[in-house]
Amino acid sequence: MRQSHLLQNTLRERPSEADTQGHSLLLRGGYVRQLAAGVYSYLPLGRRVLRKVEGIIREEMERADVQEVLLPSLQPAELWMESGRFATYGPNLMKAEDRHGRSFVLGPTHEEAVTWLLKNEVSSYKKLPVRVYQIGTKFRDELRPRSGLLRGREFIMKDAYSFDTTEEGLDQSYRVMYEAYHRIFARCGLDFRAVEADAGSIGGEGGSHEFTALSSIGEDGIAVCGSCGYAANVEQAETAGMKGLPEAAESPSRGAATTPSLDRAALGEFGNIQINMASDQMPGGGEAAGSAFGQNADQAHEPELFHTPGVKTIDQLVSAFGLQAADIIKTLIYTAGGQTVAVLVRGDHEVNELKVAKYLGVPEVSLAEESAVLAAAGVLPGYVGPTSLKLPVTLLVDYAVADMTSGIAGAGRPDYHLRGVVPDVHFSLRHTGDFRNAAEGDICPRCRSGLIGVHKGIEIGHVFKLGTRYSEPLAASFLDDTSRSRPMIMGCYGIGVSRLVAAIAEQHAGEEGIAWPAELAPFDVHLIVVSMRDEAQTKLADELYETLKRSGVEVLLDDRQERPGVKFKDSELIGAPHVIVIGREAGEGRVEFEHRGAGGKETIDYREAIRRITE
Amino acid sequence: MRQSHLLQNTLRERPSEADTQGHSLLLRGGYVRQLAAGVYSYLPLGRRVLRKVEGIIREEMERADVQEVLLPSLQPAELWMESGRFATYGPNLMKAEDRHGRSFVLGPTHEEAVTWLLKNEVSSYKKLPVRVYQIGTKFRDELRPRSGLLRGREFIMKDAYSFDTTEEGLDQSYRVMYEAYHRIFARCGLDFRAVEADAGSIGGEGGSHEFTALSSIGEDGIAVCGSCGYAANVEQAETAGMKGLPEAAESPSRGAATTPSLDRAALGEFGNIQINMASDQMPGGGEAAGSAFGQNADQAHEPELFHTPGVKTIDQLVSAFGLQAADIIKTLIYTAGGQTVAVLVRGDHEVNELKVAKYLGVPEVSLAEESAVLAAAGVLPGYVGPTSLKLPVTLLVDYAVADMTSGIAGAGRPDYHLRGVVPDVHFSLRHTGDFRNAAEGDICPRCRSGLIGVHKGIEIGHVFKLGTRYSEPLAASFLDDTSRSRPMIMGCYGIGVSRLVAAIAEQHAGEEGIAWPAELAPFDVHLIVVSMRDEAQTKLADELYETLKRSGVEVLLDDRQERPGVKFKDSELIGAPHVIVIGREAGEGRVEFEHRGAGGKETIDYREAIRRITE
Repeated sequence: MRQSHLLQNTLRERPSEADTQGHSLLLRGGYVRQLAAGVYSYLPLGRRVLRKVEGIIREEMERADVQEVLLPSLQPAELWMESGRFATYGPNLMKAEDRHGRSFVLGPTHEEAVTWLLKNEVSSYKKLPVRVYQIGTKFRDELRPRSGLLRGREFIMKDAYSFDTTEEGLDQSYRVMYEAYHRIFARCGLDFRAVEADAGSIGGEGGSHEFTALSSIGEDGIAVCGSCGYAANVEQAETAGMKGLPEAAESPSRGAATTPSLDRAALGEFGNIQINMASDQMPGGGEAAGSAFGQNADQAHEPELFHTPGVKTIDQLVSAFGLQAADIIKTLIYTAGGQTVAVLVRGDHEVNELKVAKYLGVPEVSLAEESAVLAAAGVLPGYVGPTSLKLPVTLLVDYAVADMTSGIAGAGRPDYHLRGVVPDVHFSLRHTGDFRNAAEGDICPRCRSGLIGVHKGIEIGHVFKLGTRYSEPLAASFLDDTSRSRPMIMGCYGIGVSRLVAAIAEQHAGEEGIAWPAELAPFDVHLIVVSMRDEAQTKLADELYETLKRSGVEVLLDDRQERPGVKFKDSELIGAPHVIVIGREAGEGRVEFEHRGAGGKETIDYREAIRRITE
Repeated sequence: MRQSHLLQNTLRERPSEADTQGHSLLLRGGYVRQLAAGVYSYLPLGRRVLRKVEGIIREEMERADVQEVLLPSLQPAELWMESGRFATYGPNLMKAEDRHGRSFVLGPTHEEAVTWLLKNEVSSYKKLPVRVYQIGTKFRDELRPRSGLLRGREFIMKDAYSFDTTEEGLDQSYRVMYEAYHRIFARCGLDFRAVEADAGSIGGEGGSHEFTALSSIGEDGIAVCGSCGYAANVEQAETAGMKGLPEAAESPSRGAATTPSLDRAALGEFGNIQINMASDQMPGGGEAAGSAFGQNADQAHEPELFHTPGVKTIDQLVSAFGLQAADIIKTLIYTAGGQTVAVLVRGDHEVNELKVAKYLGVPEVSLAEESAVLAAAGVLPGYVGPTSLKLPVTLLVDYAVADMTSGIAGAGRPDYHLRGVVPDVHFSLRHTGDFRNAAEGDICPRCRSGLIGVHKGIEIGHVFKLGTRYSEPLAASFLDDTSRSRPMIMGCYGIGVSRLVAAIAEQHAGEEGIAWPAELAPFDVHLIVVSMRDEAQTKLADELYETLKRSGVEVLLDDRQERPGVKFKDSELIGAPHVIVIGREAGEGRVEFEHRGAGGKETIDYREAIRRITE
């Protein structure tokens, strides 16, 4: 198309709205514009890239024999009540009422709608398996939309669903989709990892993998073993100290916290505990501060009190006293199911609340209010320690803390810490477990030899084994070959299509433009006329333009009355893989040819330029 | 694809939900399913047809150099307040609130969003004209969704917008789009008419055409001249009696009510009247019943009272007394801007409230409540007549009534009518005008010789000249070549994409299936294996299937273990243009070949079948 007609307004400066380089370039190039927080319009350039991504997804879904459907955004609230998600989805769920006062959900995802559809269409095992997908708009009322297309409130998603008769069938559907996702992301030119993940609010009990594009602006941390290739979300990855090193997990498709495949019997009791049970209440401190719990008690000295006025954080402790964070025991007080628990992790580690909640068998835990901390620890946050807990609180000790010879901990009184706090002597190891996020330098829980590296990433896809999470409550069942009614076994598979565009932009962002992978660039060729007043140039440009267009090449012809500098800058922002500059040598039929990312610029005959592009 | 895997459940019976034949077949064939009133899911067959329609639209938009964009459904309410439509759009407008209590509109159309976009992207005449389109989901909370995809609450629309610097530019954009629409609907195999129309709630002052697919189930009436080809919405078409025959309208793009091009000076005063003005209040009846208004008063007799017990409607009057509806004067009492008016039309005609409101210069009129009728006419509806009006009400007389020598009218007392009521004698013709819908047999207002035929139709597209209706309130202006700021001049152009599918289904519906136009059928070829237990048949079917697929043909292979009768019935519902039946002669390589709509069935060599399809 002719650029003089293109709806595009490029910006010279980074807009204040842009919090990442990729988003900045999408705004500067006139690909997208914000209409409201987290709500974007796609201009012609953005729409072209989006359609190309959609095209790749459609091709790969068809190759995998997945059928395209289209499900509505307006979904009756009753359907979400049947699945139970109307109550549990939370404030991200957008709702609308119709003129009769009936309540609708604006679909953030379509498990309910597709399950209801299959329930009514399919009644026999003969019609299964069925795999369907759609590409469409989703709504999610994010508290903090960010980074343009990365976390929006209205966004484009490809969602797919499989319906099988057996677990083995689900495994097969999952594998087909998993492989299709690899092909899609590879064709999009992304550096990505498939990582073990948690199923989150979608629910379901089976496996789950996240596809994560590596990027420093990503919100997700992923733990990757440098040796065996094991990869998992940092919140999901298994961790262990030296003593607590687990057996290698059995199933590569299962995360640590959801399916405890570790042999924890050797580490004390196993699985969820009832925090109300009297046997689990133990005096964690107070007068018991000096009492000994384990067999090493004889050799241990009493902890040494030292004065730390105004020092309340690990960072302050490290910098004021020249300590290592790894030598400090961090004590955090949580509220869990109405009870108070204390969690000990190393100063350089982060508590993983999901793991804590799962260990305790409660839906969630949250940091305790100050008053509850005071009641449990006798002191406000900053000086809480394991040896001075007042109430009978359950004390959860992370493996890495259990491994410490001795550590530094809060003293349970203002402005004091303790040195020489010894695990199993000064506090109990009765509840030792995996209570933290994976961290850089951890030993790989899979191969037990490699070291874990932590990377930031953008979640671009997610595959879940749902099992009967939706088919049971919605009664989507089929008759098997013995005429027995059984619930369909489901999987669901999502790709954030607009987020994918954002991730590609981040990974391919240069200083002055996005170098789009060839299959995704808004145009294949950018023809730039240096001077529109030079007839030789405009004539040659028209010939190139018409010839390339006839060959099915997507050409953008910069026919604007603008200075060459402006044209070149805009060309960077458009990022076509081929650029042909028609300048002074146009009279001799010579043009400057550039295949971006494949060497420099050459001055060649225009016919040669056509040949190179059309071949 | 193999039909054993197709998500499709055909129905033998017409579902009770289906109120038209096309919708019945879309349901029976498993194209669409209702999720909520006016909200549909598209199954694979329906999605395939929808995508083909979308493909045709995209091709024709690109050919017309219209650029694709994608605008969000969530639109800040503030934007709709700026345009004024937040207050005026009415209950069809769906709304949602976000978690912060901010109000959003779920876009039923995108004039505001696109105007806001252009306002921020384009500041100079150099960047204009711009023409953009999108294909996406719209929301409209219809009071009575009906006929499946025909009138939905969530539906697919193609909407396009043009931005020009001059009226001539808009004319050019309008023409480009008008021609593209003709190509689109022709390619969709539709029998359609472009008719003059009213701009409705979209607003704007320029021309407007509706594209209407002729169909007996349509909600829109269109008046078409059998002689000159004049076509207009019946509510929009000009009408006149013999005396009131207007001059030929000047502009073919303008409807009657919006641009009164009639020479009404000869018929009394012209244009809007202020119904509050004392001069327009006249005694319409009561004691004045017998008084004479015009010059024919001398020759006229008094009307004759006759007893019509319990007869309240035109139909009853016609059947009980053997009368012609065209000989009856229908008197309707309306409320308009707080005042009461009476409108007289012939018994076989319908009042056009839009025309009445425009004549009176009020936004709308509505039928009066019973109490207001009683006050104005001294009697309840059923016996109201022009000679017995009590209050000083404005009396509007349709041209066709003014033409009557004499008529039958309500007597203004229960159970009585009057014969021999003479216009201009027994009631005033001071406000004579065009107050009705066009009707079968009217004289054409354009050529003044042809007769009007009235057809039912489905509105499938609409083009509007908006002018500055949106660019002025939203301040979307540009600097012209003298650096003067002027509002952009807009047009908008819609196609109901999902409704188009419904209209095509209606026009191509047979008894047992939809004979899709070749370009739109979900599959090009349907291969039917008569017996899946016959190896010669399955082998030949596989070869045909693979060969055709390799040639890029979309093939559906019925590989199900079903009786032939079931397969043939389902094949009718799928409506592929080519059907190949692989049966008893498969061993000899012979198949039954049918090109639907182009002759009967032939038994031919399978290679010949491939040749015919791929050529």
